Amino acid sequence: MTRSLGGAELATSIRNDASVAAAALSEIGVRPKLAVVQATDDESTAWYVRSIASAAKRTGILCDIVDLGAAASTEQIRSTLVELGHDPDVHGIILQTPLPDGTDLDALREAINPAKDVDGANPVSLGRLVARQPAFAPATAQAVIALLDHHGISPHGRTAAVVGRSTVVGSPVAHLLVQRNATVTVCHRHTTDLAAGTRDADILVVAVGIPGLITADHVADGAVVIDVGTTATADGQLLGDVDAVAVDGRAGALTPVPGGVGPVTTALLLNHTVDAAGTQYAQTRSESVLAGFRSSV
Amino acid sequence: MTRSLGGAELATSIRNDASVAAAALSEIGVRPKLAVVQATDDESTAWYVRSIASAAKRTGILCDIVDLGAAASTEQIRSTLVELGHDPDVHGIILQTPLPDGTDLDALREAINPAKDVDGANPVSLGRLVARQPAFAPATAQAVIALLDHHGISPHGRTAAVVGRSTVVGSPVAHLLVQRNATVTVCHRHTTDLAAGTRDADILVVAVGIPGLITADHVADGAVVIDVGTTATADGQLLGDVDAVAVDGRAGALTPVPGGVGPVTTALLLNHTVDAAGTQYAQTRSESVLAGFRSSV
Repeated sequence: MTRSLGGAELATSIRNDASVAAAALSEIGVRPKLAVVQATDDESTAWYVRSIASAAKRTGILCDIVDLGAAASTEQIRSTLVELGHDPDVHGIILQTPLPDGTDLDALREAINPAKDVDGANPVSLGRLVARQPAFAPATAQAVIALLDHHGISPHGRTAAVVGRSTVVGSPVAHLLVQRNATVTVCHRHTTDLAAGTRDADILVVAVGIPGLITADHVADGAVVIDVGTTATADGQLLGDVDAVAVDGRAGALTPVPGGVGPVTTALLLNHTVDAAGTQYAQTRSESVLAGFRSSV
Repeated sequence: MTRSLGGAELATSIRNDASVAAAALSEIGVRPKLAVVQATDDESTAWYVRSIASAAKRTGILCDIVDLGAAASTEQIRSTLVELGHDPDVHGIILQTPLPDGTDLDALREAINPAKDVDGANPVSLGRLVARQPAFAPATAQAVIALLDHHGISPHGRTAAVVGRSTVVGSPVAHLLVQRNATVTVCHRHTTDLAAGTRDADILVVAVGIPGLITADHVADGAVVIDVGTTATADGQLLGDVDAVAVDGRAGALTPVPGGVGPVTTALLLNHTVDAAGTQYAQTRSESVLAGFRSSV
């Protein structure tokens, strides 16, 4: 029997912690606030953003959806991000993809204030992560590690394979696993023999967006499989990258889609926002104490 | 017979290109200048820094060795880095390790102006590298790729193993190999079975600093082995991480130590400095043209 590694319980626990912290901040006059910038008329994206906003609200976090429309230019999006970066009432910023064709996503990521970069999208955050400096990790990548921790699975000294090398999931999750002392193999579209790269791994993380890519041949007996893939079908279903039926009985554990990595990711975004609000408050306080000190001497 | 992948020819070619570019810049009044900040009385470090300075001079690049002494504080080093970052006559900055015990290397790396970060030490450079944005890669990591290219070895679709996960070599070299479409396994001190991680790799890169760590058991028949290790012995020898005698005949190709990755690294540092000088000049020019335009309207 393959054990199901659900994310709901962990997500609830993270949201509860965030909720307590948000309430404590509110008492001292700080109302944590998340801004989600979107520029698409894709309905499933809009649905996802609304789900973040409603989870934020339930957690005691304000959430502004800044919808720039599907015709927004790079410059419009950039100036919005810069404004939000300067707005003292905004503590977390998410730049939601997809963006309109032709916009420069790379340049826009760099316009997110790193202190508010709660989804670790700015290369500065990524670099600090790789250099083991304090930074917000991309929430999805961190959700993978949090799920392993929650279910008592340690990567230390184990082998792990990561399928997918994206800047938002594959690359950072590989880094986090290496930092947790796993021996990590990164596979991707140019991997000549995918099964050879994955079938000996104790832990297999898949983040490519190809439903059913991973079958029993790719999975070691008893392996822990984390399915990050979410492909929306025309009839509103959400499909993972792992053929759950095929790997059942072979994998030792598997995250469900939906209900695995997804809810933990959202909870971590909220948690990061509260953290960011606390850090920004502490910084403002220490600056004003310092200014008071300077003006008194 | 194992083929020797020497770096001397490539290093000469890179230095020649840098030299031509430096001469062209000098003609328009820009004299490329590298500053190396050191704070140690370690003799082998001092020797290495002097070798960079003399190579720079031969290439037409000015080189200042800023020696802060083995008792320098984090704050002293930081303020030096910040000053150099603002100095319009300095185009490249290297922060040489080791630093005095107790100094905060991580904080200091972030004090290097990214535009002058010719050894890719600032996490910002690392993040831009991972996000495939323009940035200077750590010279040693780039030297590994340059050596493969020079000897006509393509990582595309091949398997590669990287032993070592440091911020300066292992992590960036793994990224560069993934970006070149290799399937990459990262091994390190917590890897339970090192030979299992390396013995199937088409390309093996070793960067740990343990002489003779890699023996025939770790190497696939015909594999390309890049030895980044350089451990200095008491009698002035330089030892690699690979037992060259043991892998001879088994490896298809092996970089010598010394004379493999090392000279290419130094040449790339000079090349980056000339690049940085050109970019900074172009930027100053376009700013002054813009200022002239603004004042004329």
